[in-house]
Amino acid sequence: MSSEKKVRLGIIGVGNIGSTHFKSITEGKVEGLEVAAVADRRPERLSWVKEYLDAKEKEGAAVVRPVCFSEGSELIASGVCDAVIVSVPHYQHPGLSIDAMRHGLHVMCEKPAGVYTLQVREMIAEADLHPELVFGMMFNQRTNPVYRKMRDIIKSGELGQIRRTSWIVTDWYRPQYYYDSGDWRATWSGEGGGVLLNQCPHQLDLWQWICGMPVSISAKMSFGKWHDIEVEDDVSVFCEYANGATGTFITSTGDTPGTNRFEIVCDGGTLVAGSKSLTLYKLDVPEPEYSKNNREKVFGKPGCEKIDITPEEPATGHVGVLRAFTGAILRGEPLVADGREGIFGLTISNAIHLSGFLGREVKIPFDEELFRDELMKRVATSRRKTDGASVTGDTEGTY
Amino acid sequence: MSSEKKVRLGIIGVGNIGSTHFKSITEGKVEGLEVAAVADRRPERLSWVKEYLDAKEKEGAAVVRPVCFSEGSELIASGVCDAVIVSVPHYQHPGLSIDAMRHGLHVMCEKPAGVYTLQVREMIAEADLHPELVFGMMFNQRTNPVYRKMRDIIKSGELGQIRRTSWIVTDWYRPQYYYDSGDWRATWSGEGGGVLLNQCPHQLDLWQWICGMPVSISAKMSFGKWHDIEVEDDVSVFCEYANGATGTFITSTGDTPGTNRFEIVCDGGTLVAGSKSLTLYKLDVPEPEYSKNNREKVFGKPGCEKIDITPEEPATGHVGVLRAFTGAILRGEPLVADGREGIFGLTISNAIHLSGFLGREVKIPFDEELFRDELMKRVATSRRKTDGASVTGDTEGTY
Repeated sequence: MSSEKKVRLGIIGVGNIGSTHFKSITEGKVEGLEVAAVADRRPERLSWVKEYLDAKEKEGAAVVRPVCFSEGSELIASGVCDAVIVSVPHYQHPGLSIDAMRHGLHVMCEKPAGVYTLQVREMIAEADLHPELVFGMMFNQRTNPVYRKMRDIIKSGELGQIRRTSWIVTDWYRPQYYYDSGDWRATWSGEGGGVLLNQCPHQLDLWQWICGMPVSISAKMSFGKWHDIEVEDDVSVFCEYANGATGTFITSTGDTPGTNRFEIVCDGGTLVAGSKSLTLYKLDVPEPEYSKNNREKVFGKPGCEKIDITPEEPATGHVGVLRAFTGAILRGEPLVADGREGIFGLTISNAIHLSGFLGREVKIPFDEELFRDELMKRVATSRRKTDGASVTGDTEGTY
Repeated sequence: MSSEKKVRLGIIGVGNIGSTHFKSITEGKVEGLEVAAVADRRPERLSWVKEYLDAKEKEGAAVVRPVCFSEGSELIASGVCDAVIVSVPHYQHPGLSIDAMRHGLHVMCEKPAGVYTLQVREMIAEADLHPELVFGMMFNQRTNPVYRKMRDIIKSGELGQIRRTSWIVTDWYRPQYYYDSGDWRATWSGEGGGVLLNQCPHQLDLWQWICGMPVSISAKMSFGKWHDIEVEDDVSVFCEYANGATGTFITSTGDTPGTNRFEIVCDGGTLVAGSKSLTLYKLDVPEPEYSKNNREKVFGKPGCEKIDITPEEPATGHVGVLRAFTGAILRGEPLVADGREGIFGLTISNAIHLSGFLGREVKIPFDEELFRDELMKRVATSRRKTDGASVTGDTEGTY
């Protein structure tokens, strides 16, 4: 393909996040990508697309009118797209992604990859049948230079082994009105989970992307603790890694203003990240070496330098992920996150839920059929809110 | 008693902390208190007392020579003291305190109050038989204005209910040489525990002093993870409170430089303390009220003001505790911490150990006989180090 060629994109689901993508692309923020089609079951969302473009046109912009569909499957089968973004409720991510791949379309899947790992395994198996297709996961937080830098340092080995990770990420506050804004929200049948499935897929992905996968999970969770909802809105996790390191992960949608503090303690120093800051406490001698050789000071400790290593460049976010996706399709460039990597964070997420459901520690890999069955028990008795209006909010700055 | 009268103090145990008290009092930092006697089983510690006073005398100071005993019980029975500080290994705290009370002596007990709650209950029962005696606990961290301020704010109710507490206190680094400095250190028979018993009694006390007692504890702990020792040096705790709030507590003597970050989330705001800083995130409307009344903003949240409320005054520390103790004896003034309050933090400590021993959640109150039996099993197979020199280190700034 020449670099002049444009990728014809279909956006399946133009709700909160789908409409954000629609606007970014329409405003020309992703070179080589154009919205050729949109699909949404809600007529008012298709009207929103039309009105948005009407307004743009009135401002004098040259707009491309996408073909509108009420079903994602129709968009996929229509032949008017080269690629799709799947930005619908979580349960449908794997099914629509698989359908799109079978029709020869590149896929950018919104997070989470799915609600339970078994359905994501099917999606990955399908992707493996289509090596010619680009399959990406919308892990826009992987473009955050703070986390990229943390990962680079950990993976470089300069700090030695990880000993402890602890992430308090409680700045996901949601008022009751958020949960009331869609009848599917925060229900077992509609979302399949709460803060773990909707807000935390990024952090659960980054946690494993930077620190590796844990081997066991012990979780304490509360369901509908701060809100009138079915699913979890308060979670505390303890985990262990293969090397004996431990970790904790605390999240909630009830805390405000909330905290985002991610600490990684290694043999040779400690990294502490806020959402926009990164500090390295670098030891002059790794702790095990110091402890072994010190025969002088009962209360001695290694020398330590505090270094601010906050990166200056901004996160490219969703647009960065879409640019890489387009580059991958047109020029074989690398993705921000391969779609197959979506299963890692979801594995942690499912293990947390399973530990919370069963009230005991869960080893990873866990019994994925047992998890699906436990989830489906909850889905079977799930009740959608009857007075739930469908409100699409302004997500600016909330992900 | 006239304010001219001096309290004649006996210091039982002039090791690391006992010698610190000895120096403070000898230097006249505690008005109305003089060291009339010291006791230590190690002749070299009694020699240290003599040499210290010789040096002071050479400098021209007028020194009072304390009577020296090799056994605390002899000091107690001697009749030369009005009060004692019990600063010997933990197991002996209740026994010596009880002995002193039976001899009509006021008691300042070093933390922890004991190793297991049953022995502390005996001490409290004895204290209750002697209402005329002053019984204090050396919770010098209660003089830290950061924690005093936190407590004042929480107890005032201005932030409403507590929702979450999380304390990462990992700045207790100890090298192997510390543990090798005494054959009793970090053994089940010598100390009865590790970081929980030796380093953390302050934080476990402050945690409950500020936030109240938890009703359940789930702990993960590692024994000899970072050091060649029998007892725990790495602990992660999850707890629940009666009102449904949750808490986490993470500590270790292996991390360096370590972290001290204590966060309390309430309905009306959040307090975040470092060891010398305190920040209040104050909401303009308590979260429950905001969430109930907001019918406009899907992603709305209460307004929040960040306020630095770090107190300016320094902590008075051990000297402050001893001044209050002296004031209580001479003039009936309030203590920093009543001796009876030592059982609260120890209850949490024992519950953490029990949860770690049994690998399951422990409700508070727990089976205190079961805990003692589990501890004694470990004591029975405990092995003191054979090459352990007895080194008294400089504890300046380590507690």
